Amino acid sequence: MDIGADRDESHSPTVAQVGEFGVIDRSTRGRIQSSHTILGPGDDAAVVAAADGRVVATTDMLVEGRHFRLDWSSPIDVGRKAVAQNGADISAMGARCTGFLVALGCPASTSVEVTDGLSEGFWREAQRAGASIIGGDLVQSEELVISITALGDLEGRPPVLRSGARPGDVVAVFGHLGWSAAGLAVLEAGRSGHAALVDAHRVPAPEYEQGVSAALAGATSLTDVSDGLVADLGHIAQASSVSVDLNSDLLDTGSEIVSAATDLGVSVLSWVLGGGEDHAFAATFPRTARIPDGWTVVGHVSGPSGAPMVTVDGEPFSGPAGWSSFDGSTE
Amino acid sequence: MDIGADRDESHSPTVAQVGEFGVIDRSTRGRIQSSHTILGPGDDAAVVAAADGRVVATTDMLVEGRHFRLDWSSPIDVGRKAVAQNGADISAMGARCTGFLVALGCPASTSVEVTDGLSEGFWREAQRAGASIIGGDLVQSEELVISITALGDLEGRPPVLRSGARPGDVVAVFGHLGWSAAGLAVLEAGRSGHAALVDAHRVPAPEYEQGVSAALAGATSLTDVSDGLVADLGHIAQASSVSVDLNSDLLDTGSEIVSAATDLGVSVLSWVLGGGEDHAFAATFPRTARIPDGWTVVGHVSGPSGAPMVTVDGEPFSGPAGWSSFDGSTE
Repeated sequence: MDIGADRDESHSPTVAQVGEFGVIDRSTRGRIQSSHTILGPGDDAAVVAAADGRVVATTDMLVEGRHFRLDWSSPIDVGRKAVAQNGADISAMGARCTGFLVALGCPASTSVEVTDGLSEGFWREAQRAGASIIGGDLVQSEELVISITALGDLEGRPPVLRSGARPGDVVAVFGHLGWSAAGLAVLEAGRSGHAALVDAHRVPAPEYEQGVSAALAGATSLTDVSDGLVADLGHIAQASSVSVDLNSDLLDTGSEIVSAATDLGVSVLSWVLGGGEDHAFAATFPRTARIPDGWTVVGHVSGPSGAPMVTVDGEPFSGPAGWSSFDGSTE
Repeated sequence: MDIGADRDESHSPTVAQVGEFGVIDRSTRGRIQSSHTILGPGDDAAVVAAADGRVVATTDMLVEGRHFRLDWSSPIDVGRKAVAQNGADISAMGARCTGFLVALGCPASTSVEVTDGLSEGFWREAQRAGASIIGGDLVQSEELVISITALGDLEGRPPVLRSGARPGDVVAVFGHLGWSAAGLAVLEAGRSGHAALVDAHRVPAPEYEQGVSAALAGATSLTDVSDGLVADLGHIAQASSVSVDLNSDLLDTGSEIVSAATDLGVSVLSWVLGGGEDHAFAATFPRTARIPDGWTVVGHVSGPSGAPMVTVDGEPFSGPAGWSSFDGSTE
């Protein structure tokens, strides 16, 4: 479905005109459920396989103006991002995604072009994660609100918690760090260019299978980087009662982000260490583990001497403390 | 926790003052997870038992001013209602609730008295359903939005679908019908009294185990009554390609609802047949089945002669068609 083709005509009907059941029909018609789905949308509830007798579950809510802007991102991008940030949380337990539920609140005046685009984005990203949209709800609200629940399968393995890091472990990361924050800064500054960073902000693209790879390699702790590397490693340090030291020389800053930092006069490390929403992964591994391909060792874990903390090159990190939902910012 | 005691003081801090993690801490501290929970809140995702290798899942969103009003209902009532309407969908598959996830969006100025009350309501109703709150999210939004996902266990049974009704089956219901609509009408009219009806509107109290009872008794189809009896039986008729005829003499109208109908000059049957949000249950059973205790036979299923439809005493129902999310009403 290419909803972009209709965009210039502006003749798209509204959600009120099409009605609740019409919008739901447009979003489910012709969709093919994944092999995990035993019963898809259309009854009081869905049924999903949970082969090893357990299900992993997480939920995240996104609000227009705070978590996304439709003048910066297409509806498809927003739909993908909403599913991606939930799917990344499933991967961050060492699990595979098996299904997603979507609750959507929107004004009656919302164009079905927007709901069609969101739906297309939900589906595209759910399929990237190896799953599908198994159910949902559509209600009227003043602002556009998306709430996603992701389900996952541990395939017989124990979940990889935040609390398992041990002194002597190494810290490794997978994925671009700071790209989403850099892309947001480019958009906020009204700059052109830096497309890779802007794209990373619009649609994080978690490599979902890396959570399983980390689990299979013996990761002692694992999280996705949603609040910022230092903040998320802080959650691991706190839960594991350890401290983490990062070696800034080992962090891959890459030419894209250095170029944007120079352009905007910002410190690269403030993005790499403090920027959220990348949905990269951070894990700790025993020193003897074979670190999976594509992961980079960026630090080490030490024992509890005083309060658990995260340092960079042995010093406290003085940059942004990470994302918080009630800090007064608008994105 | 009796948050009502603080209400007159108006010295309760706001969510912005307490912060995201402070509010989450207040809502999770000291809570005891149910036996279904393998890993509760605090990591990237929760883990819940799914003993028979499948999980039932459903989601519903509630928006202030449209699905509830805090001048009519306490935060505890609203929290209970949000969980109840999702838990009833799990029961309506013939399953038992195993866990609930809660995503909450609220303005920064929201009093923590409200979030504490909602949390207390979420927990009370989750425990009534035999489960607990296993995870959630808290974000800033302009209006108060609650999105719940419920998970459930079929205990080895097939799910009871809407599509299994067969000609010759009987139709039976469990629970009060029309009470929520009557209670809403009392509130909208600004009347006093009719406390049982108003309470039923504020907090539906599904008898969750009746879904399992219906399944064990051999129900061929099952749904909860959320949109209105005729509308919800219409979903069964449509999915099963059958017609349903209700016998109005068999519908229990009871003295409470008759009294309110007289008071407001409304037809009792318009509430009983058209009123939503009761989260009673409606099912079809083979004529030879032993109908579970407490269920009332109210009609029968006939074969497809023309389009599937629901009739009352052989005539089309001319009352309200049932709840729709985009019909312009405010509740």
